[in-house]
Amino acid sequence: MSHRPTTPLLDRIDTPDQLRDLKPEQLAQLAAELRDEMVSAVSVTGGHLGAGLGVVELTVALHYVFDTPRDKLIWDVGHQAYPHKILTGRRDAIRTLRQPGGLSGFTKRSESEYDPFGAAHSSTSISAALGFAVANKLADQPGKAIAVIGDGAMSAGMAYEAMNNAEAAGNRLVVILNDNDMSIAPPVGGLSAYLARIVSSREFLGLRDLAKRLARRLPRPLHQAARKTDEFARGMAMGGTLFEELGFYYVGPVDGHNIDQLVPILENVRDAAQGPILVHVVTQKGKGYGPAEAAADKYHGVQKFDVVSGVQAKGEPGPPSYTKVFADALIAEAKRDPTVCAITAAMPSGTGLDAFGKAFPDRTFDVGIAEQHAVTFAAGLAAQGMRPFCAIYSTFLQRAYDQVVHDVAIQNLPVRFGIDRAGLVGADGATHAGSFDVTYLASLPNFVVMAAADEAELTHMVHTCALHDSGPIAVRYPRGNGIGIDIPAPQRLEIGKGRVVREGKTVAILSLGTRLGEALLAADRLEAQGLSTTVADLRFAKPLDEALIRRLLTTHEVAVTVEEGSIGGLGAHVLTMASDQGLIDGGLKLRTLRLPDVFQDHDKPEKQYAEAGLDADAIVDTVLKALRRNSVGVIEGARA
Amino acid sequence: MSHRPTTPLLDRIDTPDQLRDLKPEQLAQLAAELRDEMVSAVSVTGGHLGAGLGVVELTVALHYVFDTPRDKLIWDVGHQAYPHKILTGRRDAIRTLRQPGGLSGFTKRSESEYDPFGAAHSSTSISAALGFAVANKLADQPGKAIAVIGDGAMSAGMAYEAMNNAEAAGNRLVVILNDNDMSIAPPVGGLSAYLARIVSSREFLGLRDLAKRLARRLPRPLHQAARKTDEFARGMAMGGTLFEELGFYYVGPVDGHNIDQLVPILENVRDAAQGPILVHVVTQKGKGYGPAEAAADKYHGVQKFDVVSGVQAKGEPGPPSYTKVFADALIAEAKRDPTVCAITAAMPSGTGLDAFGKAFPDRTFDVGIAEQHAVTFAAGLAAQGMRPFCAIYSTFLQRAYDQVVHDVAIQNLPVRFGIDRAGLVGADGATHAGSFDVTYLASLPNFVVMAAADEAELTHMVHTCALHDSGPIAVRYPRGNGIGIDIPAPQRLEIGKGRVVREGKTVAILSLGTRLGEALLAADRLEAQGLSTTVADLRFAKPLDEALIRRLLTTHEVAVTVEEGSIGGLGAHVLTMASDQGLIDGGLKLRTLRLPDVFQDHDKPEKQYAEAGLDADAIVDTVLKALRRNSVGVIEGARA
Repeated sequence: MSHRPTTPLLDRIDTPDQLRDLKPEQLAQLAAELRDEMVSAVSVTGGHLGAGLGVVELTVALHYVFDTPRDKLIWDVGHQAYPHKILTGRRDAIRTLRQPGGLSGFTKRSESEYDPFGAAHSSTSISAALGFAVANKLADQPGKAIAVIGDGAMSAGMAYEAMNNAEAAGNRLVVILNDNDMSIAPPVGGLSAYLARIVSSREFLGLRDLAKRLARRLPRPLHQAARKTDEFARGMAMGGTLFEELGFYYVGPVDGHNIDQLVPILENVRDAAQGPILVHVVTQKGKGYGPAEAAADKYHGVQKFDVVSGVQAKGEPGPPSYTKVFADALIAEAKRDPTVCAITAAMPSGTGLDAFGKAFPDRTFDVGIAEQHAVTFAAGLAAQGMRPFCAIYSTFLQRAYDQVVHDVAIQNLPVRFGIDRAGLVGADGATHAGSFDVTYLASLPNFVVMAAADEAELTHMVHTCALHDSGPIAVRYPRGNGIGIDIPAPQRLEIGKGRVVREGKTVAILSLGTRLGEALLAADRLEAQGLSTTVADLRFAKPLDEALIRRLLTTHEVAVTVEEGSIGGLGAHVLTMASDQGLIDGGLKLRTLRLPDVFQDHDKPEKQYAEAGLDADAIVDTVLKALRRNSVGVIEGARA
Repeated sequence: MSHRPTTPLLDRIDTPDQLRDLKPEQLAQLAAELRDEMVSAVSVTGGHLGAGLGVVELTVALHYVFDTPRDKLIWDVGHQAYPHKILTGRRDAIRTLRQPGGLSGFTKRSESEYDPFGAAHSSTSISAALGFAVANKLADQPGKAIAVIGDGAMSAGMAYEAMNNAEAAGNRLVVILNDNDMSIAPPVGGLSAYLARIVSSREFLGLRDLAKRLARRLPRPLHQAARKTDEFARGMAMGGTLFEELGFYYVGPVDGHNIDQLVPILENVRDAAQGPILVHVVTQKGKGYGPAEAAADKYHGVQKFDVVSGVQAKGEPGPPSYTKVFADALIAEAKRDPTVCAITAAMPSGTGLDAFGKAFPDRTFDVGIAEQHAVTFAAGLAAQGMRPFCAIYSTFLQRAYDQVVHDVAIQNLPVRFGIDRAGLVGADGATHAGSFDVTYLASLPNFVVMAAADEAELTHMVHTCALHDSGPIAVRYPRGNGIGIDIPAPQRLEIGKGRVVREGKTVAILSLGTRLGEALLAADRLEAQGLSTTVADLRFAKPLDEALIRRLLTTHEVAVTVEEGSIGGLGAHVLTMASDQGLIDGGLKLRTLRLPDVFQDHDKPEKQYAEAGLDADAIVDTVLKALRRNSVGVIEGARA
């Protein structure tokens, strides 16, 4: 049973228009109700809690002051946008967040006109906002763009590139720097230290300061264009030099939980003639919900929980996650070899490197949200004799693709990649699905690309990575738990050699990665229909085990490749090899099962894989169709 | 005949060890000789001239002061490293720069131990240097790392990410900001304006200033550790606030052509206890060679030229380049449609957007070296109703892969991509070869991927892009000249429809891109052997023209795909389609010609394509082998 809060004001708000009919003195109450509603909703859905709680007042103030959806409000990452969703026509659906068929856990263009630009990966908001602002400027039509970006996201190069170009937007661009001294992990690096210095050395900018700086108290809202002078805007800026040097007017720091001060400051920002403006807002992650305030990391993303006690439901019970298996294996390698080190881009807990960091603090590098730097930094480490592991999610590694090509592959440097979240990821949806890594890595000369079929294999592969000094090597593994087998002593795998898991005669299933379980299930069902089935775990997408594949293709009636990745990956490489070697000339019933040519919505992983045609049913079906048999094994008529 | 300068001092220098035996007062003469030698060499090879001339004194000073190769000197991009190559054992080969089998035009690890980290794409040097520095620190062994990075390269997010992490290296990291107010094009954005303000508002930091700041004149070199105090290092810093806020000690600005001042300043930087240090050096591109000083852009990259007059040889005569055809076509679209706009990442002349910019300055956006921002900015423009074209080289688009996936493809926004330098690129070598774009784009849902076979096709494809509002679309085209056909009025192509260029019966060649000419040549030769040959220009790698491909595969004895790209591209998609549809079941002599699984060295493009197996000879050979015929058409024995 979920606790449903009493929300008399919020009940009257379906869209921001209605919000803007409220009196300013009602906004604090609305914010309180919004916070209660959000806690209630997330308690039944699970999801991102702390980030949304931190921006409740900011969300109310932004919609109150700006003319959304004509003004474009762009939430960086988008996982803090639950309060925004509640205020923009999606309150009815808020308890479907991240559920199958329900609201996305991020902003999404297809969901609402109040989501002008979707997100999920960080640090894109300023670039996108600049696009909106410049388009409006070119068309000479009204409309500002407001990017709300966290201090962690500001460490990404892409945010800097956008800031460096912001002047083009003039006063149509407002950047809200939401400084909660926290991304998922505590932020790192020079920028973070800089922001901390600003905040610790100054009082919050309040109404009185603002008034002082304006020389006289201005009526609010500020109607007269005459007053929107350069001096006015300059008067607000208190000196955030780094941002000023890049071309922004800096306003702040501002207390992001004091709505009575936020609103007039944002109104003045809105009406300023000069721009772009950066408003430095200081918030607290988890604000207003005791358990989340007390443990911001633990309440960043949550399972369902009890609102009163804060106690979360147990998350995915069962065997250790692949992430943990990876981290444990890496720790073992680091114990053995003092040159093994690890790099994460602001995801120490997501990649398991928090544990590694406790064991080897000197050999752990959290570089912030900076995948590009992470990879080339690792290449530099490798060039000087270290054995670096970059632990990065499959989709986030896309951020560093050129560095992978240019700095690692072309130079053939032995950087090791631990690619987490490979394959479909469930509730996080399309933006986090690790669909493309085999395709974009296995096409690169010099690269070795492995996928682990289970946790024992992952352990062997981490060991194999550590010992592979002749060039770049990657191992991919999925989100979620392993299959629960014992972890053996690590073995070094022979590069480019797969293994036969089950030997048969008629059907060959060539699996890469954790679909191996489904492949074995499919084999059982095929055997039950009298089709003797071989199942191979190829282990390597590159280099292929050509001898094994040739044998399987030439001695079985039908062969199927199975992988948790897009077109262009294992299946394409096997087909290309078969074509190169003329194996297809005489006829080859070879099929490739892979992710479909769509971005799949969030859902339960098993449902996603069924939809993708990557479960045992789909394998059996594909084999039978290739053999022109129907589902009960009777040979069909004409068509394949 | 090349002018060979008289270089008595330089003749005595084979490695930096010998350079370090010179007296300080000899360095200016050495620099002058080095400059003469470099001009002489590039006059016979062509290549990058201006950048190298700008760093002659800096190169001498760095090798004089630092202990290369133990200290790691990393040149960002590496195209300014010709003087460095001359001083590091490669003078004998310097007149082979960029020639087949000769020295690379960039730094390259395999060329010299003095090139600790190769480059060619910009902005990687600080990350790499940080890797070296941290590895040495962890191993507790001596060795600093020095990154030399231009002001243009500083606009890239990756440089910022690295600076944000630099503190970890302590005083082992030195960043030399080589500020010549010029990358290839004049730099843009807030950072550039900031640097200009520093330089214009201050005197150069000279010996006297340094002495003043140190309170007393210090012996040089500074031996005593006691003097390497925090105060010392702080005393040198004059306030480059942006860099200081990110954790650097800032030293500068320094006149990069005054070697008598450079050397003591660098010695003090080398010996400082604190770090990391950023030295802001001001140089002039093309310095010391009159014609290059007078026109920095024209002498950035040059053809062979006459040293006395500066007159360059005519570059690649013949029909207009694909770049120009693209730009002309885009200008025509922009005349027709006021929402068409164009984005370049610091390559206005390389992409042809300089001409576009003259015609439509308000609709042209040079965002600096910032591909990530370029793509998401374009996505924002598209979301607000503009029709943006991102004109980016194939390899540089790798920098923005996540933005292409996350911001463009997943949101299905109609961003247009003009992908220049697709395929092999000749003298620029592996780092600039556009090998992977079809593979990494055609795997993405929602994307349309085209390749132009000639300049007429390119014109149609630009028009097709402009009219395609339903999602992302890309057209790729190569470096170099078109084939010299007339440019017709643009036609809108039907998405996913190829064309048959020549109709035959036995052999089908399925071409994508400008290998079409070789395909037609191959067809002539095959016909001469009695093999009636169809040649199709598929135009689309995605979506495939399935009807056409099915017809060709099922009505010809043998089919060959040909593309200027890696495995995972067109050939893989055709094979996958044939497998999905069961076309291979009955036997299919289908072969895929593609780039080989190696990073090819620089060479003449035609030689590179021959080596890659992508010319008419290779096509004929592949067909005959598939048909089990030998080169004179006689059917062979057993093996394929």
